[in-house]
Amino acid sequence: MLENISVLGLGLMGAALARSLMAAGHHVTVWNRTPAKAEPLVAEGAVLADSPDEAVGASPLVIVCLLDHASVTETLDGTPLAGRAVVNLTTGRPVEARRTAEWVAERGGDYLGGGIMAVPPMIGQPGALILYSGSRPVYDRYEQVLSVMAEPRFTGTDPESAPLLDIAMLTGMYGQIAGFLEAAALVKAAGLPLRDFVTTLLTPWLHAMAAQQAGWAGNIESGEHGTEVSNLEINRAGLENLVRAFREQNVKPDLLLPLKAVIDQRTARGLGHEGLSGLVEEL
Amino acid sequence: MLENISVLGLGLMGAALARSLMAAGHHVTVWNRTPAKAEPLVAEGAVLADSPDEAVGASPLVIVCLLDHASVTETLDGTPLAGRAVVNLTTGRPVEARRTAEWVAERGGDYLGGGIMAVPPMIGQPGALILYSGSRPVYDRYEQVLSVMAEPRFTGTDPESAPLLDIAMLTGMYGQIAGFLEAAALVKAAGLPLRDFVTTLLTPWLHAMAAQQAGWAGNIESGEHGTEVSNLEINRAGLENLVRAFREQNVKPDLLLPLKAVIDQRTARGLGHEGLSGLVEEL
Repeated sequence: MLENISVLGLGLMGAALARSLMAAGHHVTVWNRTPAKAEPLVAEGAVLADSPDEAVGASPLVIVCLLDHASVTETLDGTPLAGRAVVNLTTGRPVEARRTAEWVAERGGDYLGGGIMAVPPMIGQPGALILYSGSRPVYDRYEQVLSVMAEPRFTGTDPESAPLLDIAMLTGMYGQIAGFLEAAALVKAAGLPLRDFVTTLLTPWLHAMAAQQAGWAGNIESGEHGTEVSNLEINRAGLENLVRAFREQNVKPDLLLPLKAVIDQRTARGLGHEGLSGLVEEL
Repeated sequence: MLENISVLGLGLMGAALARSLMAAGHHVTVWNRTPAKAEPLVAEGAVLADSPDEAVGASPLVIVCLLDHASVTETLDGTPLAGRAVVNLTTGRPVEARRTAEWVAERGGDYLGGGIMAVPPMIGQPGALILYSGSRPVYDRYEQVLSVMAEPRFTGTDPESAPLLDIAMLTGMYGQIAGFLEAAALVKAAGLPLRDFVTTLLTPWLHAMAAQQAGWAGNIESGEHGTEVSNLEINRAGLENLVRAFREQNVKPDLLLPLKAVIDQRTARGLGHEGLSGLVEEL
């Protein structure tokens, strides 16, 4: 079903979202603080609203993608939101999402927040994912529309869920990136072919090792951190060896040192027989 | 072709290696400092040597898997190695491998070192990998035999190559593990279902994100760290937000802080427009 949708905020991400909705045939009204940014979209068929009020008035579904949560409440301040589904795709932290959800509810709006797991060029393409939390009715009513921008995933009615899981996914990614950077620095320092190492060894190895995570998650949920094959004592010895090897190659192992420190700390509590999953208790 | 092979060192790993060779029909002689550990293997058909000398004398191919490199030279001290292929699967650092290779060469042996990317139960199973470096003739002569224990990969004639790439792979794994632990701690603190998060969101996301590594490796080899979508300034803001979110959930972001520090350092040099691959230059 084709819908009337307003998009507030036309940065790289907001413009990509609006464009994907227009490509699906929806009737899109846009607003941006500096109207010049709307020009290409208007040329492609979007309607330009002169104010946030006018934009919100034009559509029952209002998608907001601004700089931060403060910009959201500043932009919508004084605008009646009764009967509006406010889908906030502005990046922020869980506590900010909760506050904005309450603020929208006080003004009669129905709040659904989203965490975009994609960069702008990925919007509307396979592989892009948006985590949502907040109003289940809004999600159910508009799931088809939302799927035009990216694969939608409802993660709970608590507005904190989506930004929290978004941040947790980024956290996992930053750890993987830190490991990659250290590995790459070591291989580069040794003068070995890096791209070949990454494509034939490192990336397939990381895929294989990620298979352990589901089991660790089960350990963490149950609080049972036993292991048959790779306890903390073994990992402690392995990491000490690894850090020495880095220093012998004149590469800084800085990104790995806190993991070593946490393993040392857990082992010092007499829990060296546990597996790696037990380290979560130290964080 | 069935071979005479000696295996020195019957810890969990050495025993698994010997067993996989015996399963393929090879004639295996074993030696261990405490002979009792050899009993199960002898019951399965291995021949027990009374000394390292006798074990080395029994076979042209000698596989060594001991506690560390010092144990290797101590065990083989005084034993003639002329005409022997010494395949050293003892864990160690690149500089140790080079020293042991030279030590073996001085005694007339032909050295091939290996880094085992597997735990003992994986030996002889699909998915186990052993990186080799050192004597190419030994590798070529025995590639079929070696493939019985794990998929063999020759990484260069420099004996330092295999242990260095081994350590680099473990480094990448430890980074991924650190990111997993932080992500899991955050999701756990929020009371959201962890196993579901890991299987449906985190692990697939890490697989997708690992696809960027080949491109970054290319950037690092060329020294060109340009990016269109995710520069250091954007990542710096993202990590600041992330660290605040951790603190708001009372979870320690310690494992991520050094990455943030390196991004801050690189950005302070005026290189905030670069992509993440540029961070290798700071390590």
